[in-house]
Amino acid sequence: MIGENFSEFLPLHTMELKNDLFLRAHRGEAIERYPVWLMRQAGRILPEYRAVRAKLSGFKELVETPEFAAEVTIQPVDILDVDAAIIFSDILVVPEAMGLTYQMIEQKGPWFEKTIRTREQLSFLDQEIDVQERLSYVFEALKLTKKELAGRVPLIGFAGAPWTILCYMVEGRGSKTFSESRKLLYTDPDLAHELLSRITDVTIQYLKAQLNAGADALQLFDSWAGILGREQYTEFGLKYISKIVDAIPHVPLTVFSKGAIASLPDLTELNCSTLGLDWNMNVVETRKMVGETKTLQGNLDPCVLYGSQKLVELETIKLLKSFESQRHIVNLGHGVYPDIDPEKVKVFIKTVKNYEI
Amino acid sequence: MIGENFSEFLPLHTMELKNDLFLRAHRGEAIERYPVWLMRQAGRILPEYRAVRAKLSGFKELVETPEFAAEVTIQPVDILDVDAAIIFSDILVVPEAMGLTYQMIEQKGPWFEKTIRTREQLSFLDQEIDVQERLSYVFEALKLTKKELAGRVPLIGFAGAPWTILCYMVEGRGSKTFSESRKLLYTDPDLAHELLSRITDVTIQYLKAQLNAGADALQLFDSWAGILGREQYTEFGLKYISKIVDAIPHVPLTVFSKGAIASLPDLTELNCSTLGLDWNMNVVETRKMVGETKTLQGNLDPCVLYGSQKLVELETIKLLKSFESQRHIVNLGHGVYPDIDPEKVKVFIKTVKNYEI
Repeated sequence: MIGENFSEFLPLHTMELKNDLFLRAHRGEAIERYPVWLMRQAGRILPEYRAVRAKLSGFKELVETPEFAAEVTIQPVDILDVDAAIIFSDILVVPEAMGLTYQMIEQKGPWFEKTIRTREQLSFLDQEIDVQERLSYVFEALKLTKKELAGRVPLIGFAGAPWTILCYMVEGRGSKTFSESRKLLYTDPDLAHELLSRITDVTIQYLKAQLNAGADALQLFDSWAGILGREQYTEFGLKYISKIVDAIPHVPLTVFSKGAIASLPDLTELNCSTLGLDWNMNVVETRKMVGETKTLQGNLDPCVLYGSQKLVELETIKLLKSFESQRHIVNLGHGVYPDIDPEKVKVFIKTVKNYEI
Repeated sequence: MIGENFSEFLPLHTMELKNDLFLRAHRGEAIERYPVWLMRQAGRILPEYRAVRAKLSGFKELVETPEFAAEVTIQPVDILDVDAAIIFSDILVVPEAMGLTYQMIEQKGPWFEKTIRTREQLSFLDQEIDVQERLSYVFEALKLTKKELAGRVPLIGFAGAPWTILCYMVEGRGSKTFSESRKLLYTDPDLAHELLSRITDVTIQYLKAQLNAGADALQLFDSWAGILGREQYTEFGLKYISKIVDAIPHVPLTVFSKGAIASLPDLTELNCSTLGLDWNMNVVETRKMVGETKTLQGNLDPCVLYGSQKLVELETIKLLKSFESQRHIVNLGHGVYPDIDPEKVKVFIKTVKNYEI
């Protein structure tokens, strides 16, 4: 349980923050106003990001070059005035560190040459992975970012949840149904569990190393949670998320299981500080389930930002009014879409900041 | 309300059915065993379908040629021994009849040259549509099928629900987020309502004409229901489904709103005989909500059919045991995936048929 003595476990560097609203909201401490940031805030939405990206050979060069990753991580802090930075990276660095390299194909998304669908294909994965060395570029990016942020706002590290990472390792690309991954749960559940266990082990090491490199908080993204029913998500999703959360106690950690509406009662049982809600999840109902034991993060429909300034204000205030306690971090219910006007994002952020708690 | 006098409203042709289990289950009448069929049973899963398809120029030729459409509609009745046939067609014939032609691109899915994203683009749509003439190939296919089925099993007609059709008309293709469609709900809700109203009008005409051509029952597919939150689905989805259902009373009609877990309480309020459940929806919980006022259709995870014969039997029996009344039609929770072994489908069907109620 995250209790009153929570702050004594925090790494020293978090003590020097000028704006620690985000961390206080995670811990359920008093806040003057709700903190706000956006998933995918470091990304194509900003012209300044696109300018950096245009200089490089591709998405992966940006992910793998600490100077550039740090630069785009800080951009939304400077430009949008968000209350937290999230390190620019990709959840697929974990399967790559495990032995499956990927390409990011323009307009198409990720593509893995090798996939794991049989026990024999487990041999594609390396044993004894030195996470510190293989993902050193992420840790370097965190250190650089931390230094350049100079305590302005907290820095979030992240990873994909094991189920979502398994989906990419099995499917080798995005999919509408992820039927190859779901097939494995029926044809060879032991193999699925073996793969999930290996991903979990690497992810725990990875997240701990992110904390050591300067991350003040963590988020687990389970993008494909919603394709499993409640029972299967408990067995193949939450079991491993729970292992990760339990291995990294006393750290502000958000679990974002997109689409897992049916599993919300189970998610409230996790030992994490915060649950991320997608735009289809109901704040009031989730608060009833979770009580005051957790912070809720989210969940404005990202499409609201396509609307007029007036609409953005109205919908943001409607969301804020649905909050019955201080345990909230404001965000969208999904990553910001790349064609959103940054001015609308500023209206969203300003509306949250001007709202009296 | 569908009451005891339901049968007096049925068209005469349904009286001559040799196997009317499916219709009796819709009406909540006594059944000896649960009826069973599969969404997408007339399709790529069967080698016999692929043989017909290989002779033709493409998917649309199959949809538009009544002889071939009838042939593949009947194949699963002959080969798989299902308790209902569903006419081979596509939900996109409706937007096409309204003025937006589409292509079905191999490995990619549907593609519309013109899309409706502005009020001006409404001019792409025809006024005064003669549904009877424009979709005559569907009605011909129904008549032919009906004749060739010779009363063996009931014949299902179908259409896409207005929200899903709007998604294709706005997006012009499939999408992961359907953000263009969701954007419209914020930027120009009046245009969205105008488009939904027009789709609804055509759909009502279309479904009535399908009944006249021999359909014994109907199904509305709302494939993208799950991308809207409960409130928006009520306004932009259920409102129009409700209009359709109310315009076609006393007919066995299934509403299948895939992914709309949060909206299940609202779905139970519709005046339709049956709700389709996807594999993530819980049968027992939905039964509690709906009581005995409706039949539930579904909802085996289609990925179960990738498993062993033993697994298919076990999971099917587990599903059957979760039924607390006779008001059930057995189906998958999604269309059967094209690479499933038809032998596994036969095990599924046999297991349902051998199960003592």
